[in-house]
Amino acid sequence: MKAYGVIMAGGGGTRFWPLSRADKPKQFLNLSGKNTMVVDTANRLSKVADKDDIFVVTNAKTVDATIEQTKGILRPDHILGEPAARNTAACIGYAAMEITKKYEDGVMVIVPSDHFIKNEEQFALVLSKAIYTAEETDRLVTVGIKPTFPSTGYGYIKYNADTDGIAKDVEEFVEKPDLETASEYVDSGEYAWNSGMFIWKASTILKYFERLLPDIYRCLVRIGDAMGTEREQEVLEEVYPDIPKISIDYGIMERADNVMMLEGDFGWNDVGSFDAFDQIHDQDANGNVVMADSCIINSKDNVLYSTQEGHLIATLGIEDLVIAHTKDVTLICAKDKAQDIKLFVERLKEEGKDSYL
Amino acid sequence: MKAYGVIMAGGGGTRFWPLSRADKPKQFLNLSGKNTMVVDTANRLSKVADKDDIFVVTNAKTVDATIEQTKGILRPDHILGEPAARNTAACIGYAAMEITKKYEDGVMVIVPSDHFIKNEEQFALVLSKAIYTAEETDRLVTVGIKPTFPSTGYGYIKYNADTDGIAKDVEEFVEKPDLETASEYVDSGEYAWNSGMFIWKASTILKYFERLLPDIYRCLVRIGDAMGTEREQEVLEEVYPDIPKISIDYGIMERADNVMMLEGDFGWNDVGSFDAFDQIHDQDANGNVVMADSCIINSKDNVLYSTQEGHLIATLGIEDLVIAHTKDVTLICAKDKAQDIKLFVERLKEEGKDSYL
Repeated sequence: MKAYGVIMAGGGGTRFWPLSRADKPKQFLNLSGKNTMVVDTANRLSKVADKDDIFVVTNAKTVDATIEQTKGILRPDHILGEPAARNTAACIGYAAMEITKKYEDGVMVIVPSDHFIKNEEQFALVLSKAIYTAEETDRLVTVGIKPTFPSTGYGYIKYNADTDGIAKDVEEFVEKPDLETASEYVDSGEYAWNSGMFIWKASTILKYFERLLPDIYRCLVRIGDAMGTEREQEVLEEVYPDIPKISIDYGIMERADNVMMLEGDFGWNDVGSFDAFDQIHDQDANGNVVMADSCIINSKDNVLYSTQEGHLIATLGIEDLVIAHTKDVTLICAKDKAQDIKLFVERLKEEGKDSYL
Repeated sequence: MKAYGVIMAGGGGTRFWPLSRADKPKQFLNLSGKNTMVVDTANRLSKVADKDDIFVVTNAKTVDATIEQTKGILRPDHILGEPAARNTAACIGYAAMEITKKYEDGVMVIVPSDHFIKNEEQFALVLSKAIYTAEETDRLVTVGIKPTFPSTGYGYIKYNADTDGIAKDVEEFVEKPDLETASEYVDSGEYAWNSGMFIWKASTILKYFERLLPDIYRCLVRIGDAMGTEREQEVLEEVYPDIPKISIDYGIMERADNVMMLEGDFGWNDVGSFDAFDQIHDQDANGNVVMADSCIINSKDNVLYSTQEGHLIATLGIEDLVIAHTKDVTLICAKDKAQDIKLFVERLKEEGKDSYL
């Protein structure tokens, strides 16, 4: 059975403002220094699915930009536009319907568009095993990330470490824990981080939709019935905005039996905010991460990022700061406050300064 | 006798980089938020000398810019261009020669172009008394600033506090002291900061040149002899670059007898670097000095200055920084390192990045 990649690229997000903007969310930024995140993700996924078999699901408004960015890599008719953001269940259901209508069935390999992965060979190896597992067992498969520290920022997956074979039975999905609980999880060797990567047959997940999310399933069937007809777009725009907003985690994963997990240990990072740059980039001798024309004197452990070529960032005697510069905004932020950058976006919205959003 | 203002505007200076550039030194910047420093200085000086009687001595290359900036305030033919920078003795001698040739004689009121003065009425009052003293006594007069803290960054003037009258006899000019000595000076009540303001008759200072700096005097006479002839510019350009480089302090003030000093207490600041902004500007409720479009969250005691209209400076959780933004450079500097900004200029020069200088 063929494997089909599905890249979820519908997110908005303000934690990389001013680099990310209303019309240019995080997945369309080049944060790795190589390509935009969505292109990095497509290239990475092409190790387990043919490029011609990879889909992107994104906001309808960013379809053109996505086609442009992935030109020469992905098929333009595989860039699917959501008329409204309805969370991950809708996104995945839409892609599953598209695949069954166009190609009858296949193993979907669903990944977020905005994560960083250091060891891509290892990533491909784990996903290959997950694809095999999904095809052989017809079960829902996910990848759990082997935790490297007691994070309170991720959900966890409890699995049965004694399961025979590489794929482990999932016992429970749990919410973001407090620090003490997180430490227990990590020490136990029975928990992994929920990565948001899912592997299953399109036909299988649609059965789960039918059983666990019948309201959404009815919408998907209406959309599916119109696919390939001249009413396809019209029906999509009519039905999609009414799909209940729910994540695939809440809607299906936490309620399904028989979920399996493969553990991934490949330098995964969800690039949640600017301070993640320290993990995903090389640092200079003084601990600075620099993606800018710069002149740095006696400064250490800073992140410097500029999208304006030829603009010089000069730093003297500063420490632990994030500096993000664009044509119209310069952000200077304490690194340990990088999680709060959304405050600017709220403030500017309140003040009606929409041009900076 | 008429009073003639002489504004010394020949300085280069890199301590306000990137605002100040090779072709736009500090005195041509608007650091006060009102006007450029040279215009502020001209307006201030006009309280004791007619605007038509005020001269500016500046680098020949910046004469046009100075004429442009002072349009409607000063006479264009009173903007004197030095073909080369030869320190303050040359500058003052040149102005003295110009005044004696054009107007026979007058009391020169010589001030730097790049200082800030808070209480302009008090400034005018002290200068008026200095002008009177210089005219009546025919002596060299200077203004000493009443010290407000034991600065190690200024030279000091020791004066005889028991002198009858407001003008005090100067006993000695002393170099920048160490902190202990500076404290003794301030406690003694017999020392003032050397402000670089001088008041004397043009004829008087030329006599001092003849006696104490005969080499320079000979140059000045050659330049003076050509004044008003068609060879004026040619002789100036030929002779001026050969004038020995010496400051008026070393060349004359420290060697002359009979120097008098008036004490000034009018909120003087030589605006030596960005950290002076805290003294010369109002601060917001969190101690920030802001001359920029800004969005400031949980940040305190910073200086934000932008020359690029419409460019937003956004700060989050930062403290005690200087941020200076121009069209092509953004500087982020620890406030207590603001004195070292010249390091950038040196570095960029070494790297051949002249466009940023």
